[in-house]
Amino acid sequence: MSVITIERKVLEKNDEIARQNRALLAEHRILAFNLVSSPGAGKTSIVERTLEHLGKSLKVGVIEGDVQTDFDAQRVARYRVPVIQIVTNGGCHLEAQLVQDALLQMSLPGLDVLIIENVGNLVCPANYDLGEAFKVVVLSTTEGDDKPLKYPSMFRNASVLLVNKIDLIPYVNCNLSALKSNALQINPHLQVFETSCTTNAGISDWCGWLRKKGAHRS
Amino acid sequence: MSVITIERKVLEKNDEIARQNRALLAEHRILAFNLVSSPGAGKTSIVERTLEHLGKSLKVGVIEGDVQTDFDAQRVARYRVPVIQIVTNGGCHLEAQLVQDALLQMSLPGLDVLIIENVGNLVCPANYDLGEAFKVVVLSTTEGDDKPLKYPSMFRNASVLLVNKIDLIPYVNCNLSALKSNALQINPHLQVFETSCTTNAGISDWCGWLRKKGAHRS
Repeated sequence: MSVITIERKVLEKNDEIARQNRALLAEHRILAFNLVSSPGAGKTSIVERTLEHLGKSLKVGVIEGDVQTDFDAQRVARYRVPVIQIVTNGGCHLEAQLVQDALLQMSLPGLDVLIIENVGNLVCPANYDLGEAFKVVVLSTTEGDDKPLKYPSMFRNASVLLVNKIDLIPYVNCNLSALKSNALQINPHLQVFETSCTTNAGISDWCGWLRKKGAHRS
Repeated sequence: MSVITIERKVLEKNDEIARQNRALLAEHRILAFNLVSSPGAGKTSIVERTLEHLGKSLKVGVIEGDVQTDFDAQRVARYRVPVIQIVTNGGCHLEAQLVQDALLQMSLPGLDVLIIENVGNLVCPANYDLGEAFKVVVLSTTEGDDKPLKYPSMFRNASVLLVNKIDLIPYVNCNLSALKSNALQINPHLQVFETSCTTNAGISDWCGWLRKKGAHRS
């Protein structure tokens, strides 16, 4: 029995549980997305800004994934929304089973949107379906404009790219049009928003898009 | 046969090849280090500044690890040093076998230092010994001061922490003393340098430390 066979079996089992999660979310008409990025690109800040923007009109729940600590759940809990922290204890990505366990702990009726914030990792989470409607990848300008070409799977599998920390453009070596062109070369269907969680630039555009997606679910 | 057993076997095989790499490097009296970080923390820029600083007095070779592209090897090759690019094709970390294959392609006699730049990933490379003398973890100030607590394995397994992009401190939400205190809480033995590849701050301190390490090898 080869390692490759084992890996395929792990992925097949994950996909089966992801299908169950997707069915459960559909039953409750919840729009769920899987938020992925490198460590420190600003995922949790994006969650916070999204809650500030949408929290009054939509009921949003959050699942936080981290290797260690519940810092992110603590940050999100200040917004008085349902939040569950998953600690992977060294695991480099969320899997569908962990998300299913969290869904079973969460009160789903009445939720409009579920944000699943993955572990900070631009490689491994690309391969694991969690049952989400789509993936949103956050890339910060400080990481450099070549990253979509160097880590293509994540950009290929995502529907939305949030180019975050655009307020830092004057101070870093990042060509914004090269970054976007590299991302669209990997995935021409990417919906791209330029955001800053410091200045709030782009947040209303991103949330407007998300609200429309939410209105069209069911 | 469980997945965990397979994983242990993979790691045991990796460790055996890492031992062979370590013996080969010792035979040639080469000081090798494994450079790890999130994507975009500045590993390749650290390699470039290190080559500028040490390249005249020491002979340095470089192994570049990336999921896709040979951009980093192209950047390093401009310094006219021996460089081999490993493309993992989706793999989230370097393994000892890939490094051994690269070592066999490289002319080792006369080399003083070997830099192995790992795939940008703050989780998975922590578990894979490549045969290096020590790990150097780069954390950029833009990633935030909580990252050592959220991704502890990498900081626990490293000997050196380069806190990079310190020139961006005025523009980002990062408490430098909290960052260092979090890192030292995880690993009190970490040697910490504050660096900027834009202003060259801290590069001579880091390279001075590396030069001493090189002088004491054998």
